Amino acid sequence: MDIGIIGSSIVAQTLGARLASLGHGVMISSRRPDAVKDMGQRGVLPSADQWAADQRSQGRTAAAGGFADAAGYGEVVINATAGTVSLAAVGTADERDLEGKILVDVSNPLDFSGGLPPTLAVCNTDSIGERLQAAHPGARVVKTLNTVNCGVMVDPRQLGEETDQFVAGDDPKAKAWVSEHLLRDWLGWTRVRDLGDISAARALEMYLPLWLRLLAATGSSILNVRVVVAGETG
Amino acid sequence: MDIGIIGSSIVAQTLGARLASLGHGVMISSRRPDAVKDMGQRGVLPSADQWAADQRSQGRTAAAGGFADAAGYGEVVINATAGTVSLAAVGTADERDLEGKILVDVSNPLDFSGGLPPTLAVCNTDSIGERLQAAHPGARVVKTLNTVNCGVMVDPRQLGEETDQFVAGDDPKAKAWVSEHLLRDWLGWTRVRDLGDISAARALEMYLPLWLRLLAATGSSILNVRVVVAGETG
Repeated sequence: MDIGIIGSSIVAQTLGARLASLGHGVMISSRRPDAVKDMGQRGVLPSADQWAADQRSQGRTAAAGGFADAAGYGEVVINATAGTVSLAAVGTADERDLEGKILVDVSNPLDFSGGLPPTLAVCNTDSIGERLQAAHPGARVVKTLNTVNCGVMVDPRQLGEETDQFVAGDDPKAKAWVSEHLLRDWLGWTRVRDLGDISAARALEMYLPLWLRLLAATGSSILNVRVVVAGETG
Repeated sequence: MDIGIIGSSIVAQTLGARLASLGHGVMISSRRPDAVKDMGQRGVLPSADQWAADQRSQGRTAAAGGFADAAGYGEVVINATAGTVSLAAVGTADERDLEGKILVDVSNPLDFSGGLPPTLAVCNTDSIGERLQAAHPGARVVKTLNTVNCGVMVDPRQLGEETDQFVAGDDPKAKAWVSEHLLRDWLGWTRVRDLGDISAARALEMYLPLWLRLLAATGSSILNVRVVVAGETG
């Protein structure tokens, strides 16, 4: 399947590499596909162009383009931009390119402008997931994966215990497809909970402050939660 | 030890009963200790006076009073009011009665005025935990237990797996006391994570929307999360 990824962040590159390794065609995207990304203390991230060349050198099907190119390329589209710029980035797509497509939103509206820890640019009564769905009513938005680091997104088994992944969205078939194929078959998530319509994206995004505190307390970003319910078998 | 509980809610009554059953003296409190509480679909909750009489009939040391009475009574004070009224309720205490005392805050600022699901009356850049600490600088506020239902607070073992409890606060000794005695020895919490200073109360309170979605998705309030970190032994 051809997958278009809006963004060229570490999340986009990590998800893209995993999906390309499975034989899918992947296009990641940027306003400047030729620009190397400075990630500060975390080093330098290859440009989208360089990422695609690296993937192709391994025999994979990969490309880099603008945001609108990725939206047009994908049979499924993934938003992997920072939540604070997601509306603008996805908004550059030709609306016809999103019509009827599943738009997987893995973003978080982290706002670092006030220092650390970041606050959320949107929360409580709204979410990036809802804003994307409202801005693109023809797309079938599914919020998922935003509650884990990208290394965990593509390899949940490394945690050593089964943990939970979540989906939220208005389209049951879209959520079922994401749960069964993207999450289970392709990425290895064995426990996926449907939290309801796209307004549940608020809950998933508002979990991020706790994730950030857990990161600080444990010193590891390779973490997640296992939901434990009395009487529910593991 | 004598424990004063600000509030007479189901949380106050459940926590109070557990602590009284362990031999502690407990005073719960209300503006109207004689008033029966209508919990809507969940039935009727005994008045604070009736609760205390019921406890005493079992040979326990229990009393009911006003909020300020409970603050004066407790060697440790627990805020178990709804977060939206916690500042007002704790604010009726004589400040000298809180000076140097541990004030355990288990509240959540759930605002049901806009319908379901509730929003948070405070979040993102502030929290009830922080507001309580700011309003009562002599108290040693520890945020904890707000991430679980009161039935789980007092009996985490019923989940069948070890799950995580959290503490946040500015006073390391207060957090250590709460972790070792209130949480571990008295309530049975074996995994307690220190998330940092009282500003981490934001993260704990912002988790509530996810808890509410999990409640809706699973149909059970007897739930919690187990934090799984790569390389950390269970």
